[in-house]
This record gives sequence, C-alpha cells and structure tokens, in this order.
Amino acid sequence: MKKANKKTNAAIVVIGNEILSGRTQDVNIVNISKWLNQLGVRLEEVRIIPDIEDIIVKTINEVRKKFTYIFTTGGIGPTHDDITSQSIAKAFNLYYGYHKEAYEILEKYYGSEKFNEGRKKMAMLPDKATLIFNPSSAAPGFVVENVYCLPGVPSILKSMLGGLKNKIIGGKKILSKTINLRTVESEIALPLEKIQNKFNTIDIGSYPFFKQGKIGVAIVIRSTEEDLISRCYRDIENFVKKQNITIV
Amino acid sequence: MKKANKKTNAAIVVIGNEILSGRTQDVNIVNISKWLNQLGVRLEEVRIIPDIEDIIVKTINEVRKKFTYIFTTGGIGPTHDDITSQSIAKAFNLYYGYHKEAYEILEKYYGSEKFNEGRKKMAMLPDKATLIFNPSSAAPGFVVENVYCLPGVPSILKSMLGGLKNKIIGGKKILSKTINLRTVESEIALPLEKIQNKFNTIDIGSYPFFKQGKIGVAIVIRSTEEDLISRCYRDIENFVKKQNITIV
Repeated sequence: MKKANKKTNAAIVVIGNEILSGRTQDVNIVNISKWLNQLGVRLEEVRIIPDIEDIIVKTINEVRKKFTYIFTTGGIGPTHDDITSQSIAKAFNLYYGYHKEAYEILEKYYGSEKFNEGRKKMAMLPDKATLIFNPSSAAPGFVVENVYCLPGVPSILKSMLGGLKNKIIGGKKILSKTINLRTVESEIALPLEKIQNKFNTIDIGSYPFFKQGKIGVAIVIRSTEEDLISRCYRDIENFVKKQNITIV
Repeated sequence: MKKANKKTNAAIVVIGNEILSGRTQDVNIVNISKWLNQLGVRLEEVRIIPDIEDIIVKTINEVRKKFTYIFTTGGIGPTHDDITSQSIAKAFNLYYGYHKEAYEILEKYYGSEKFNEGRKKMAMLPDKATLIFNPSSAAPGFVVENVYCLPGVPSILKSMLGGLKNKIIGGKKILSKTINLRTVESEIALPLEKIQNKFNTIDIGSYPFFKQGKIGVAIVIRSTEEDLISRCYRDIENFVKKQNITIV
C-alpha cells in the first residue's frame, strides 16, 4: 500500500561525458520525469557529471541525503568508461565484486561460452545491491538504499522503469493543465502574478512559444489537486477574455 | 589575444521548472556545449534546478567558485516565474534595480507607449551587470563576474552566443573523432581499455547504438591534440581489423 507523502522528491544524476560534450542529446531526464509525475514524486534537481570516480562518489553522497530518491543514468555497461557500479560501491563504502544473482542472470542469458570478461564486468556490483530487472538486454540495474542505477540507453532505461513502479513510494499524481494564448508574456505578466499569489500552493509557469511562424505563450498550471487547477484555470480564462486575448 | 588554458572549464545551470517537470525537452545544453568545444572550454557539470530563489542563490554561489565560466539558461523574461536576475543579484550581494543601458535598449525597441510594467521588469538587473546583446528580441542577457545569464528560448539563446565569443577566453579547440563498429561493447571492452591506458590524456568513450534495426558501438575519441587522436584512431582500427569487426 502506497503512502501519500507530499515531500517525496527525487534527483537524477546523469553520468555521461557524451552528454557534457554535446555529442548526445539526453532524453532520459524527460522520460524519468514524466514517469515520476505519475507516481507523485517531484523531480527537484538534475546533475550531469563526467565519468570520473571521485566526482560520482562526491555527487552521490551529496544528493542522496537531500532527496528521497536518486536515479542515476549511464555507466553500467562493460567498457572502461562504465564506472557507475564501482563508484556507487565506494560512495556507500561497500565491497565491489561479483553479484551472485546478476552473474547467474547474465550467464544464463549469454550462455557460458559467450560469457566473456566484458560481460562478466556487468555482474560486478556493490555488495548487497538489489537488482532492477532488465527485460531488454538482461544486464540488470541495481539499487543501493535510495539510489537507483539505470543504464544510459533510453529504450533500455524505459523498459526497466515498469518493474520499479512498486518500489517507489510517491504521493498523489502530479497533474498539469496548459492554456495556450496568442499574446506575449509582457501583456499578461501582472494579472498572472496576481493569480499565482492567490493560488500560492500551485506552480504556474509561463513559456513563450513560436509555432508555424506565430508567437504565443503557454501557461502551465501544475498541482496534485485537480480542483485547484480548475479554479486557477478559470481565473486565467477570465482575465484573458477581458483583455481580448485569443486562446489557441 | 586569447590565452590557451587547459584548465578552462564551465558549468551550465538550467533554471527551469519546465525542464524538471518533463514538459520541455532541453536543447540548450547541447547547443552551449558544442559552442564551448569550439572555444576550447570544457563543459564539466550541468545542474537543472527549480525557479526557487534560495536554490538559485545557493547553486550559483557553489558553482561559480568551482568553474571558470557559468552559463545560466532561463528565467530572464517578464513574468512572475522569471527570477534569475534578482537571484543573481542576491548571490553576489548586489543592488537589484533598473539597469540604465538595458532600460534604454528596451524602451527604444518597444517605443515608450508599449514599454509596460512587464517589459520594464526585463530592465531590472543586478547593479554593475554587463549586458549580453540580444539580436532576436532586444531583452538583453547579462554577465556578473564569471556568470553569464542567457534566456531559455533556444533560438534566442543561440542568437546571443555569437556576441559572447570574444568574452570567453578558452584554450585549444576540443576535437573529436568517431569510429562506428558493427559489434557489441563486450567484444571490444578489453582491447579498448588497453588503448585508453596507453593514451591516458585523451577521452575514449564507448556508446552502443541501434540504427535501422542493427546494433553497433560508436567509439568517440576526444582531445585537443589532433595527432594523438590520429594515433589512437589507428590503434583502434588495428585491433578491430584483427578481430574481424566491420567499421560502418
């Protein structure tokens, strides 16, 4: 049975030189964030850091005390630049070595003949880590305390989130409603601020957009409370009608 | 005259609830990172944080001491959720108010009749901030010491980077070369590690990919030294040929 907890929050630590170098466009943050909204867990910080052990250890030890859940992405493959497992072991002061269950899963998947050194490395985990099942390519993710380590390949990561659902104790689903206006931000800044001050427990965001050559502003209302969102939405509708602004 | 400095590094602070909530896919990180590669500045950390003043102040004060250059994105528009300018002023203990030059630029752009409260807010900056010219929509970015504040809208941000080029003192351009292999990571992990140990001043990354239904691995070599990259590339070529791995 899940308990509602308004303060349930999360951070993502992206471990990846390829994101910092601009080579790869990250998409895991958006995917994890949307999944967390459904579970009622608020993503409150993301850090993108390089494949350097000291930095991973320091970052993990800082964020794991600040947030309910930490998700790491990347660095759990077989190559020399995959150092997440050993870094997490170091962060928690745990022995790093073959994990019996992971070893068996991988050996069974590849067959003992094809279970080479590279593949065996993926069975090297922090002692006492709990596995995260990988339905795509066998190599498991793992959990140590509140730190959930996932792969960097987006399709594999996504396929592993399903199995995690019951391990994450969130709160009420985070809902959002968008109202798109044919206007510019400066025309609505003051009335919008008043509405934000009135509904001070919900997030109202204002984002300019350019679509098909036309500019506009998207107002996004975010809360766990559907009725608050509706009331806030009506207030916005009222002032935009008064200002003769078109809703698109 | 630019001075070469191998230790010139940078961090990006993305200020934006819309990125954390999963509503918006960030693309500014990739754009800034690629631009920094050209300038010989290494992006070493990214933080994505919410639109909350205390968190912005704390984050800025932490990272500005650790990295040569800090780039912030987002939060410099006219609405209530745009709080970057006031937060930067607070971080540096500077007066926050109308910036004469910014005020004049904006008043001239909009004309005094259309220069309403919302637009005036974009002229509120930390005292002594230097402006970053905005060729797209007038509202300037700004610099305080080593912190460069840019907007969140990708097209506007990109248009502002050109004018910054001469303010950033980097080092040698960061180069990269990719070799795509029809193999899986575990088949190349050991020889690749040996090559990384041999060329220990350059970054070698290994990234699995799926293209047109076929799997492969991209090996990315990154360094400021072209000859090192070439030598490393040849070593990789040699071992993949020995292992009968196809280069694609």
